[in-house]
Amino acid sequence: MPAAPVPGLTPDPSAAPTGRTPGTLRVALLGCGVVGSQVARALVEHADDLAARAGARLELVGIAVRDASRPREGLGTVVPADLLTEDAERLVDAADLVVEVMGGIEPARGLILRAVAGGASVVTANKALLAAQGPELFEAADAAGVDLSFEAAVAGAIPIVRPVRESLAGDHVRRVLGIVNGTTNYVLDQMATHGLDLEEAVKEAQGLGYAEADPTADVEGFDAAAKAAILASLAFHTRVSIDQVAREGITGVTADDVAAAAQTGHVVKLLAIAEQTAEGVSARVHPALVPAAHPLAAVRGAFNAVFVEADGAGPLMFYGQGAGGRPTASAVLGDLVSAARDRLSGGKGPSESAYASLPVLPADAAVTRYQVRLVVADRPGVLAQVAGVLADHGVSIDTVRQTADEPAADGGAGTAQLLITTHAAREASLAATVAAVRDLEPVRQITSVLRVEGV
Amino acid sequence: MPAAPVPGLTPDPSAAPTGRTPGTLRVALLGCGVVGSQVARALVEHADDLAARAGARLELVGIAVRDASRPREGLGTVVPADLLTEDAERLVDAADLVVEVMGGIEPARGLILRAVAGGASVVTANKALLAAQGPELFEAADAAGVDLSFEAAVAGAIPIVRPVRESLAGDHVRRVLGIVNGTTNYVLDQMATHGLDLEEAVKEAQGLGYAEADPTADVEGFDAAAKAAILASLAFHTRVSIDQVAREGITGVTADDVAAAAQTGHVVKLLAIAEQTAEGVSARVHPALVPAAHPLAAVRGAFNAVFVEADGAGPLMFYGQGAGGRPTASAVLGDLVSAARDRLSGGKGPSESAYASLPVLPADAAVTRYQVRLVVADRPGVLAQVAGVLADHGVSIDTVRQTADEPAADGGAGTAQLLITTHAAREASLAATVAAVRDLEPVRQITSVLRVEGV
Repeated sequence: MPAAPVPGLTPDPSAAPTGRTPGTLRVALLGCGVVGSQVARALVEHADDLAARAGARLELVGIAVRDASRPREGLGTVVPADLLTEDAERLVDAADLVVEVMGGIEPARGLILRAVAGGASVVTANKALLAAQGPELFEAADAAGVDLSFEAAVAGAIPIVRPVRESLAGDHVRRVLGIVNGTTNYVLDQMATHGLDLEEAVKEAQGLGYAEADPTADVEGFDAAAKAAILASLAFHTRVSIDQVAREGITGVTADDVAAAAQTGHVVKLLAIAEQTAEGVSARVHPALVPAAHPLAAVRGAFNAVFVEADGAGPLMFYGQGAGGRPTASAVLGDLVSAARDRLSGGKGPSESAYASLPVLPADAAVTRYQVRLVVADRPGVLAQVAGVLADHGVSIDTVRQTADEPAADGGAGTAQLLITTHAAREASLAATVAAVRDLEPVRQITSVLRVEGV
Repeated sequence: MPAAPVPGLTPDPSAAPTGRTPGTLRVALLGCGVVGSQVARALVEHADDLAARAGARLELVGIAVRDASRPREGLGTVVPADLLTEDAERLVDAADLVVEVMGGIEPARGLILRAVAGGASVVTANKALLAAQGPELFEAADAAGVDLSFEAAVAGAIPIVRPVRESLAGDHVRRVLGIVNGTTNYVLDQMATHGLDLEEAVKEAQGLGYAEADPTADVEGFDAAAKAAILASLAFHTRVSIDQVAREGITGVTADDVAAAAQTGHVVKLLAIAEQTAEGVSARVHPALVPAAHPLAAVRGAFNAVFVEADGAGPLMFYGQGAGGRPTASAVLGDLVSAARDRLSGGKGPSESAYASLPVLPADAAVTRYQVRLVVADRPGVLAQVAGVLADHGVSIDTVRQTADEPAADGGAGTAQLLITTHAAREASLAATVAAVRDLEPVRQITSVLRVEGV
């Protein structure tokens, strides 16, 4: 690692010929957005506490940004503005610990690889990068004998990466069900609580700063899918990339779906699911009906929670704020203190664990229960017809609820609502079944098909 | 550490002159009860997975018990009976990793100190020992450069020690509210759900194996107090011993209290509380009214949960099974894998962090809201009189609810129920206030005084 002084960084590293002050670890911060600015402030404001906990002073030696001349209100008055630099590479080269909170694939990937190659430990909050390129980064970190930590990449402030990687290292995780996107949880909660439709709820979330101007990454489930890939990889000791996560967002969820869910004792949640079966592992993101008595059903507003089912531990749930500057910075700083401790003790945090290398199953291999709502002609024999199609496709019915609508205006046969809950069925069978039901003469409409999880 | 062969242990360490097989770490298990037998089974049954995760085989070299000749059904058929030994000291001397699940103060304390002095890392589930003698053990472990881990000592399978020690190492914890005793949570939940009185609910818990034949340690709050001491020490980087924990069990909680709580939108929970104020830190255990909307209120049956409030992270909750052989063994095994990884990487897990050394406050310094129920003569002016006494003592009233009972049989003035909820008041002031209220002529009875937490 070059020990050359980095101009514009304080204190001037040329003061120490090795670029190191004894008892001090040099921290480079890449990115100064909502999270980065909170990390910077904490490093300055809580320097004494952090030093006592880490065993060495964590000296913020620079903050890499695209435009160092732009004022950064987020930094407050405590962080010297001359820490800002546009030369991320030189900053990285001068650091013992690198915090990457810039997001995106490049230049984050290149800078992390550079840091690791130079012997620095890295803390990142970059879920998109990890879900796409995790193995490359982990291998580089392991080869260099440095830590690559990423608690902040999944569910913000909630400790979930460390518990799965370390606390459950002696257990066998079977399933992870996570509410890992606060925006969509807020939207669905508003729909359930106030009867809003999706568009109204998204607008409200935008007004409160919970949703971006372009909410695609959240409402289409991309953000949750990245987290599902990370959780599945950790839980099953198997590499799962975001491309292998089946993904369905909440844009198809209607106010009517949410109301109907309540009538059957469920709430609609966008879940990130990682599951192991006898055939392999799967990861998927989709809206699901969760029974009202399930701990995840009580997760309101923009909160996140991750429910883990393990052979030994049984059910566990981790709950808290999944986003926001200060909560995410808390997770980053926890990783940073651990990385500093490892550095000082000469140890190393957990390496990538992908030894199990289980098959990653395709989306249509998933087996879940379904709730299908449909409108049919209100006359005898229709239910038998529908049930017959399900039976032909090997999909077994758990319960049926039938409600007659108003009779037709001409006095003829009106329509009825059918709500069918199936036993566990394979995604592929269900899709074929629904298509066949749709073709039945008395079937007017398939109103919705929603998976039921957490039972 | 003596490398002499230990008779009766398999494989015979005399086969390897150093007492070590390369790529293998020797695990000694102290205790073979509900938890120990599950740890032993897992070490044998899941040896390959554990080896892949730890980076070395974790070879169970012996299980120390008081009577090695007694059959141990808990071990099943997979654990060789000849691993049982009565010579705990020789076993410890031959181990790289020692798991202490025997409980109690001695000989556990002596064996842990011996293990540490011999260079072994220790995993313990012994909350009583840690809460009483923690500092001595931590100092010994730090001096020897070995790990002393104890995830299983607080809330069984729930990862809470590691998150507080490591994930929150860069944050500032303000308060911890824990349901950390499954027995009392089960009892209180049964009282709330089925209207049982305390004695009936305890009997039911005993029938289900949730409560011991002598339930004192649970119902009197001793078990929770040990955990409160451990959590307070970790959260506030300050040594807090069990002697410094104010403790009140659930034996004073009546079916009537639980029913009255429900009427005001609360549930009664036995809470372990660790709190930091401007004056210092405090730890206490007592029954408390928790608002029904608080995440802790939804923790049913014998489940545990720990709610943490931190400056950066905000509110967090960790939920799961707090007791039982397999869940507790899961926590032990997680620690064991981490200790093995540290050993292999030459690193060390977190040391004791007590740098803050904050003052530990006496019980009567706690500041909480209270709900006081009393029976008074049903005549004008009584409420004013009671309110006057509270005001004189500087205790401010939040709400009052008054309910007239049946009139007296002689047609004279009957009685009324008063339910007073105070604003936050100091424990010492409240005690004096209640005494003064009791002395008022129209006050017939103080039915209950319960703290309100989680608001």
